[in-house]
Amino acid sequence: MAAAIALAGRTRGLTAPNPNVGCIIVRDGRVIGRGWTQPGGRPHAEAAAIADAGGDIAGSTVYATLEPCAHVSERGPACSDLLAVARPERVVIGAGDPDPRTNGQGAERLRAAGIAVTEGVEAAACRASMAGFLTRLATGRPQVTLKMGLSIDGGLAMDDGRSRWITGPAARAHAHVERARHELILVGRGTLAADAPKLDVRVAGLEARSPRPVLLSAHAEGLPEGWLHIASPNDIASLPGDHLMVEGGAGAAAAFLSADLIDRLAVYRAPILIGAARTLGDIGLTDLLQAHGRWQMVDMRALGGDRLEIYERRRS
Amino acid sequence: MAAAIALAGRTRGLTAPNPNVGCIIVRDGRVIGRGWTQPGGRPHAEAAAIADAGGDIAGSTVYATLEPCAHVSERGPACSDLLAVARPERVVIGAGDPDPRTNGQGAERLRAAGIAVTEGVEAAACRASMAGFLTRLATGRPQVTLKMGLSIDGGLAMDDGRSRWITGPAARAHAHVERARHELILVGRGTLAADAPKLDVRVAGLEARSPRPVLLSAHAEGLPEGWLHIASPNDIASLPGDHLMVEGGAGAAAAFLSADLIDRLAVYRAPILIGAARTLGDIGLTDLLQAHGRWQMVDMRALGGDRLEIYERRRS
Repeated sequence: MAAAIALAGRTRGLTAPNPNVGCIIVRDGRVIGRGWTQPGGRPHAEAAAIADAGGDIAGSTVYATLEPCAHVSERGPACSDLLAVARPERVVIGAGDPDPRTNGQGAERLRAAGIAVTEGVEAAACRASMAGFLTRLATGRPQVTLKMGLSIDGGLAMDDGRSRWITGPAARAHAHVERARHELILVGRGTLAADAPKLDVRVAGLEARSPRPVLLSAHAEGLPEGWLHIASPNDIASLPGDHLMVEGGAGAAAAFLSADLIDRLAVYRAPILIGAARTLGDIGLTDLLQAHGRWQMVDMRALGGDRLEIYERRRS
Repeated sequence: MAAAIALAGRTRGLTAPNPNVGCIIVRDGRVIGRGWTQPGGRPHAEAAAIADAGGDIAGSTVYATLEPCAHVSERGPACSDLLAVARPERVVIGAGDPDPRTNGQGAERLRAAGIAVTEGVEAAACRASMAGFLTRLATGRPQVTLKMGLSIDGGLAMDDGRSRWITGPAARAHAHVERARHELILVGRGTLAADAPKLDVRVAGLEARSPRPVLLSAHAEGLPEGWLHIASPNDIASLPGDHLMVEGGAGAAAAFLSADLIDRLAVYRAPILIGAARTLGDIGLTDLLQAHGRWQMVDMRALGGDRLEIYERRRS
């Protein structure tokens, strides 16, 4: 299942409104097919894996990060029907598909066809691998990641605005790879005016994965060509794509945090002290008690001399 | 040697002006003596370990975190002379003693007595275990640790000064244990006035290890009984003890950082965002380039939902 999750990551940010799914087919201890949701959402991972296996998967075990779909679309047949015909011995499913058109009916159709089904294998990791899709399904809006480059003491920049550089080359390169996993990247009016940022992906081989820039501003005047515009964080539901990265600056970050619309924090932490620094700004907190229990660190890694800290919003 | 270092930690903060040393004596694969520098600095670790072994250590191997001293004092004989008489087979030394009265002469005296000597075993860890002594010897002042309880975004408090609580019970208990490893604890005038802090150690069994409070202030008016006073960070050389913890608030922290008198940062990091927060304040930085290369993370650990990050000042 871990290998299937890795395959699913290949098109994260490219499959909306479909989930990015991974699928591996194993027979006699050998991988005979690998597939993942293709850009644009079709073919689905299972169809791609069956094709990769040459069509014959009889007697195999199929690992899929998401329950195979039960709904026929004009763009292709339902994966559960495909599998019922292809007759693997067993289908191992990571996460159930909460889409009401599937929601257990995919697994049911496989069982009805006499295929063994195991559900819930590495379900949390599978759900995390398609968090954008699940967030859109549950809330109607993209998953939102706030990226910040911070000093030990929380500085986003010196108090005159200088922020080059807080983090080192390894952290900055990683941040570009993170961009490539998002369809949308947002900055506020201040960052647009001050930095005229190029929000593309500057990593060899990933240039084509640059996300669509979005401006958060009360008005759309001076909107660069090709950019999208929203007047308020609450307008993100209208944006195309299931992954939005809030890139800066402090004002945009604070606006999204105040609206409680950040699902994930990616903090690139440099081992420096700035002192008099530009920091986050008001996020609407009136009591320290409110601040607790909202965030949980889920990952941390070294990037050169810096560290990446990933926090997720805890929701009850 | 790791076990000897652990013994050395027992009297960290209690042995100034002597180093806190640990000593283990092994014969035929068994530990026959354990010793550590006693409070006040005497007996030395080696003398304590020989006594613990009942006096007979002939043919043994002695592990000492610091080179045995070569200088006779009115408070006792030189450890290298004691060992030369006691005739272990080998003495394994962690760090060399830079005190000019020893500085290689301890090891030399052992070799002259026909005892095998191995030097430099786990030297870095041994030096770290007596950093206060070594800092005093090299610079004439105590080792200074700055303790900060910080949010993800670097907040020391809300902007109205409220800081209860940023970190949780496990982190606060750990901070009290850290206090017990310091002879001196310092706050600024603002913290004294606002919080009237009790700077004692509130951990069962360690109450007697409470450090001596020090006030950093332009004047000594209103100095609580039993407190010491300095007018500037540059006056710390005069303070008794080799370990000073700067406890707060932001002004005192910034004054010590501006003077480049912090050797070690102990950051208790809570997984919360504060937003409009009280942060460190001006530390004299004029360029981000200056900020780099000064600090290195040397340890990190989880404390409940919080994390302790330890950074050390890199000095060339």
